[in-house]
Amino acid sequence: IFGHRDFDKLVPLINGKKDFGVMTGMMPSGQMHIGHKMVIDQLKWYFEKGASLSLSIADMESYAARGISFEKAKEIAINEYLANYIALGLDLTADNVNVYLQSQNKTLNDLTFKIAKRVNFNNMQAIYGFNASTNIAHLYVPLVQVADILLPQTEEFGGPKQVVVPVGVDQDPHLRLTRDIAAKLNEEYGFLAPASTYHRFLTGLTGDKMSSSKPNTAIYLNETPKQAEKKVKSSKTGGRETLDEQKELGGRPDECVIYEMLVYHLVDDDKELEKIREECKNGELMCGHCKVHAAELMKDFFEDLKVKQEESVEIAESLFD
Amino acid sequence: IFGHRDFDKLVPLINGKKDFGVMTGMMPSGQMHIGHKMVIDQLKWYFEKGASLSLSIADMESYAARGISFEKAKEIAINEYLANYIALGLDLTADNVNVYLQSQNKTLNDLTFKIAKRVNFNNMQAIYGFNASTNIAHLYVPLVQVADILLPQTEEFGGPKQVVVPVGVDQDPHLRLTRDIAAKLNEEYGFLAPASTYHRFLTGLTGDKMSSSKPNTAIYLNETPKQAEKKVKSSKTGGRETLDEQKELGGRPDECVIYEMLVYHLVDDDKELEKIREECKNGELMCGHCKVHAAELMKDFFEDLKVKQEESVEIAESLFD
Repeated sequence: IFGHRDFDKLVPLINGKKDFGVMTGMMPSGQMHIGHKMVIDQLKWYFEKGASLSLSIADMESYAARGISFEKAKEIAINEYLANYIALGLDLTADNVNVYLQSQNKTLNDLTFKIAKRVNFNNMQAIYGFNASTNIAHLYVPLVQVADILLPQTEEFGGPKQVVVPVGVDQDPHLRLTRDIAAKLNEEYGFLAPASTYHRFLTGLTGDKMSSSKPNTAIYLNETPKQAEKKVKSSKTGGRETLDEQKELGGRPDECVIYEMLVYHLVDDDKELEKIREECKNGELMCGHCKVHAAELMKDFFEDLKVKQEESVEIAESLFD
Repeated sequence: IFGHRDFDKLVPLINGKKDFGVMTGMMPSGQMHIGHKMVIDQLKWYFEKGASLSLSIADMESYAARGISFEKAKEIAINEYLANYIALGLDLTADNVNVYLQSQNKTLNDLTFKIAKRVNFNNMQAIYGFNASTNIAHLYVPLVQVADILLPQTEEFGGPKQVVVPVGVDQDPHLRLTRDIAAKLNEEYGFLAPASTYHRFLTGLTGDKMSSSKPNTAIYLNETPKQAEKKVKSSKTGGRETLDEQKELGGRPDECVIYEMLVYHLVDDDKELEKIREECKNGELMCGHCKVHAAELMKDFFEDLKVKQEESVEIAESLFD
């Protein structure tokens, strides 16, 4: 997390275990990768602090953006996303969790239509850069997402409350639009402006952004432990040109994909991380050794994940019974 | 009816009692007037010929256009519209009749969203004259209406079939857009282009267009028999300046509001109508006498209607149980 809006309003709620919510969405297209785990870890943290959780499956978005049918989207959501959310430790069957498909949620769709009456084409153009050849479904979907963010504050879900939305920076336009709309609907619904936090993206294995659509940048959660291990081993590190140089100058952990993985996913113990960091920087720890260690941990992580995934698909399916 | 598109395709179906549909919609705002009876008479005719009937209550339109809530729209639809449809002799409880609220129909809303992916802002601008400050709900509603017209052809309602839509000429843009969309969705759904007929509007009591929003132009179906009688008596006729002139030149039934009422609503017998027409034109029948006669018939019609309306409200309510 490197930025936020109104997070300070949440702090007393989090500490006081007051009623607050966390909201996130997933577009069911493609596959989940290890970078997505960061969001899930955040959700888990909020959930442990007493937040209710609202989880939107953006099947209307995946239809508008990718032409994926609602049926297909549901299938992908269950097998690729929800099963992994559960496998990664989020209890989606808990009472204060609401998982829903956009297309199936009547309250959401009614709210979207109300929102649509308060936004015009000029607004959408200014915020999203749409133009006159943008199809109407595409134009409508961001309003569904605004409704997603406000849904936890509707009467059905206990009425107005502080809600935090962990997002990537690229999603900030939605948040700003939602804050405007919340103000416009405040009188009728009592909506509060949602808070948001902005997380960084995990660096891709190649050093670029990790992306669902570029296989060599990401480790997908549906890969085998063997594949995951191999991908770690071929990742870009913060190492120097030669071993001698590395011994002399030390490695650069802050530019190292492997080190980032250790921090975010593979090592919980801060002292151990500190030790790795120091040994790297002072030239004691070489990349080869470090990679083998990380790859081993990743393999273990994936072996554990595979077992949990199998159990989780059924649980994920049961969410829609 | 003074115009049509593709009605010729319906003729063999009507005569052969084949599967075909008739579709109409009502925007639940304001009140019904005697002019609306013409549409109901058409629906009855199609229904007797074996058509299935799809009746959309345009609560999404009334929200977008007039800010009427869905709850209020339903109430108006039942008491002001459906009760009158039933009172005027349309059996809405029959098996092959589908009465629905736009906002409550999932199939309709899914179809609308699919349609929205195939239309852009340019198209909407060209067809409806929308501009960039048009709100998005307003932009979206015509697509709901396109979906209304195509709904009878979905699998849920027996699949592709010829459907005729009796409309006012002002609604032709919807029909043309629907025909385009039907072609685009033909491969996936097998939709046939809907046929349409164009009816004239009943002339208002003042000689202008009869309008829901101008009380002195229309007789509302919720008025008392006394009020209806009085409004007929104060209607504009095709009479001459003086009685002498009328005796000499004869009246002008084709410019007469009273004569139109007799034709469309009050007299079924063609011979009787012909007699009135002739006696008017040759100066035998004076407006005063004719008005008294028409007013009497209207009063009878309304007295009968009042009784039927009372029974009909409950039936209308039961449509949504």
